[in-house]
Amino acid sequence: MHEAFYRVPPLVIGGRTLRSRLFLGTGRFPSPAVMLQALEASGAEVVTFAVRRVNLDETADDSVLQHLEGRDLIYLPNTSGASSATEAVRIAKLARAAGLGDWVKVEISADPRTLLPDPIETLKATAMLAEAGFTVLPYTSDDPVLCRRLAEAGAAAVMPGGSPIGTGLGILNPYNLRLIAEEANVPVIVDAGLGSAADAAQAIELGASGILVNTPVAKALDPVAMARAMALAVEAGALSRAAGRIPKRLYATASSDPDGVLE
Amino acid sequence: MHEAFYRVPPLVIGGRTLRSRLFLGTGRFPSPAVMLQALEASGAEVVTFAVRRVNLDETADDSVLQHLEGRDLIYLPNTSGASSATEAVRIAKLARAAGLGDWVKVEISADPRTLLPDPIETLKATAMLAEAGFTVLPYTSDDPVLCRRLAEAGAAAVMPGGSPIGTGLGILNPYNLRLIAEEANVPVIVDAGLGSAADAAQAIELGASGILVNTPVAKALDPVAMARAMALAVEAGALSRAAGRIPKRLYATASSDPDGVLE
Amino acid sequence: MHEAFYRVPPLVIGGRTLRSRLFLGTGRFPSPAVMLQALEASGAEVVTFAVRRVNLDETADDSVLQHLEGRDLIYLPNTSGASSATEAVRIAKLARAAGLGDWVKVEISADPRTLLPDPIETLKATAMLAEAGFTVLPYTSDDPVLCRRLAEAGAAAVMPGGSPIGTGLGILNPYNLRLIAEEANVPVIVDAGLGSAADAAQAIELGASGILVNTPVAKALDPVAMARAMALAVEAGALSRAAGRIPKRLYATASSDPDGVLE
Amino acid sequence: MHEAFYRVPPLVIGGRTLRSRLFLGTGRFPSPAVMLQALEASGAEVVTFAVRRVNLDETADDSVLQHLEGRDLIYLPNTSGASSATEAVRIAKLARAAGLGDWVKVEISADPRTLLPDPIETLKATAMLAEAGFTVLPYTSDDPVLCRRLAEAGAAAVMPGGSPIGTGLGILNPYNLRLIAEEANVPVIVDAGLGSAADAAQAIELGASGILVNTPVAKALDPVAMARAMALAVEAGALSRAAGRIPKRLYATASSDPDGVLE
Repeated sequence: MHEAFYRVPPLVIGGRTLRSRLFLGTGRFPSPAVMLQALEASGAEVVTFAVRRVNLDETADDSVLQHLEGRDLIYLPNTSGASSATEAVRIAKLARAAGLGDWVKVEISADPRTLLPDPIETLKATAMLAEAGFTVLPYTSDDPVLCRRLAEAGAAAVMPGGSPIGTGLGILNPYNLRLIAEEANVPVIVDAGLGSAADAAQAIELGASGILVNTPVAKALDPVAMARAMALAVEAGALSRAAGRIPKRLYATASSDPDGVLE
Repeated sequence: MHEAFYRVPPLVIGGRTLRSRLFLGTGRFPSPAVMLQALEASGAEVVTFAVRRVNLDETADDSVLQHLEGRDLIYLPNTSGASSATEAVRIAKLARAAGLGDWVKVEISADPRTLLPDPIETLKATAMLAEAGFTVLPYTSDDPVLCRRLAEAGAAAVMPGGSPIGTGLGILNPYNLRLIAEEANVPVIVDAGLGSAADAAQAIELGASGILVNTPVAKALDPVAMARAMALAVEAGALSRAAGRIPKRLYATASSDPDGVLE
Repeated sequence: MHEAFYRVPPLVIGGRTLRSRLFLGTGRFPSPAVMLQALEASGAEVVTFAVRRVNLDETADDSVLQHLEGRDLIYLPNTSGASSATEAVRIAKLARAAGLGDWVKVEISADPRTLLPDPIETLKATAMLAEAGFTVLPYTSDDPVLCRRLAEAGAAAVMPGGSPIGTGLGILNPYNLRLIAEEANVPVIVDAGLGSAADAAQAIELGASGILVNTPVAKALDPVAMARAMALAVEAGALSRAAGRIPKRLYATASSDPDGVLE
Repeated sequence: MHEAFYRVPPLVIGGRTLRSRLFLGTGRFPSPAVMLQALEASGAEVVTFAVRRVNLDETADDSVLQHLEGRDLIYLPNTSGASSATEAVRIAKLARAAGLGDWVKVEISADPRTLLPDPIETLKATAMLAEAGFTVLPYTSDDPVLCRRLAEAGAAAVMPGGSPIGTGLGILNPYNLRLIAEEANVPVIVDAGLGSAADAAQAIELGASGILVNTPVAKALDPVAMARAMALAVEAGALSRAAGRIPKRLYATASSDPDGVLE
């Protein structure tokens, strides 16, 4: 195989080298069976789920977790439903105590209509959880300075949204995502808003190290096919980025030299 | 393998079922060796080249064609350099007489700066060549009515540009491309202007049946890696389209139901 | 008044210097009274209407024309409803014979869903009508080569659509509009698809000499206010273009020098 | 004059009803004379300048302020150069003590390359200055939740950037601006990044109550003409918004009814 395939740098978060750049959410699938098939098709290693939806007393019997057990996965429980840093920290600690590991996605929403993250509480929770030894991945707006502050506060990766959760609007501000990726000294995982494979490829080309998707897979007409499409798109985007695309230019350059041998 | 993978309809042009949706141009590569490696990595079955650059007298010795021989490829010689229908028809007939097959990409440029196609001459040449028994694929603007006229004139597929040749600006008018694909009764192959894997995936998601790329592969820092990225992107786009993406919506829908078991 | 105000070149079409860059369509208004108020607020000098909707036998009694009489206006009857060059020419000649002047907007639609113009028939009609002494303004796609061919065929101005009639989608392909305006040796009037004042300003900044609007004014909640907004926007766009905007750049430049006197 | 002109709600900030929605920065003009002419042409009532560039000991002799005196203007001194809330508060208090009024634009940059605002320090400074009786207008990212937090902290208006200062990239994320404006209970003034009149009109149409511009006017080839263009564009945008634009739709609706009287 051609050397270029090895030039795509591996994705390392919290000291772990991940085999896939695609993180999968487990909510909203038609059934656990479809979720598992989609998980398989996606090749995802990191899976996320809302702690509040999990039966923490008996995780072995939980409707979602029982299906994930025995697979080589990294759990990324999220704090969705929290509306303050204190709540988010409490949820994260409950999850860790229940044996779900020490990775956590901080998700603190400020608005039920958009579910957009609260910058202040998210930064606070990130600092507190990093201090408490968690591998913290905060869901954040695409404010480049906020993303830097999150990394400084100990985030293992930052997760800016492309657009609000579940909208499928894609990356509303490619400029900001590129800037965040350029400046970040932690991996950037685009979380929320992606709708299709093209969005996924674009995120990676702009400099993201990975993406997290849930709704666009779970609610596609065929979730399994979409999971596979997302996996291919992420791979295509990473290779495209590593390959060094042509610069954009305003006017044409002929694919063939203007003077030819005919005539 | 999951049934969805079979729902992507095959691409048939001129009665031939193609195994790849990615067409590759052969110009501007650093060397024939790199071109061949890229061709391999792309999986392309249809290759295009400018007739005027080929030594029609001894195709077996031609610097490009000698490397392609013996492979299972469909030649799509193009008429670039032509500035009228008459010229394009003459070039196509020379190519056929030289044994390059009966597929032809009509390319009649009206402007050396943008190399944009001439709608009137392109339509004329398409009608004349279809009449003469060619399998005609005209490079055209993204004017939806013009694309329909080309199909009516006998085009086996239409090839609207995403943006001017070699610019890497991607798909300037997604609306038009979607409209062309919705209305077309022949395959739509996006030709010209694509820059990266994300552009390729987007083209297919908008409804194109395939894409033709040359400059973005040949002039990438690593043409072979980019060829592979394009191939993956086209596959991702086709699967994403077949999977039935979520609709775009203005506001969030929670990935997890708002009421949960925690607390 | 500042000299710059005089640097905006006047708009001249068919030998007439126009006092406004805003052309107004007269269809779809809630009432003739509102149409007249909007016309007043717009400052438009050129008005368009469908010939087929006009009572050509008694124009003095026509429900639209009777209100326009006595004003200092240029009539731009259009051939909407025509589906071929022959029909369009016939309509134009009927209008001229009925005393509606010798300006004509060629409008030949090929599709009832999009009303997009037919490039081939439009070019034919333009040539025939220019030959017959009309001042011809063809409604066309934004295909840059087609626009050039129309000018060569004798069009007094070209009228590329921003997006399909009545959609309010604005300028779908700013790149093409800029290219058309750069290359045109006749005025470019953006016709169709504009939705708001910002669209109007953008059209002029991209290089259009004027715009034609109908639906966005007639169907606004307050047509008179929108007519005035469009007039201001066109003026703003022309002045902005003449003023020489700053180039776009990727990163900030401080509005104030980084080193200051404080401290 | 038509009633609609009165439906545009007046802009009220800190209890003052403003006569213009256009705020002007005073930096980077070729000369004080050009700055004054542009100020005149803009009709701006609110002017901003960097406190650190002003001679606070003798404001009457200051190179900028001496020209502004005697005019009916509201000073909006800004804290540019500050990199923390403490610094910003100190600068604001110096300005107030020097008689420059009690309005202040909080500007706390975190990055010399982009001059993007620091969300955490900006929120702190806003709360402290509101507490201290200032009329506070913070320059902020377009994070909708942050904008809400700023209003809750006492901001009299919020000033999200369209794109980084001086870039002329316009409004990178129209979705976010619309959301901020929909939810805001204080006026939204777009600050930074606008490049031309069309950008200005778009900002207002998206729901902003006003805009602040400096570089695009001061560095235009003709600053005075651009100042006037911006003023017209803001007026056009406000009127367009009040007029109730047509909804965007995917396909055409004929401006004239499909069945007409001709034939």
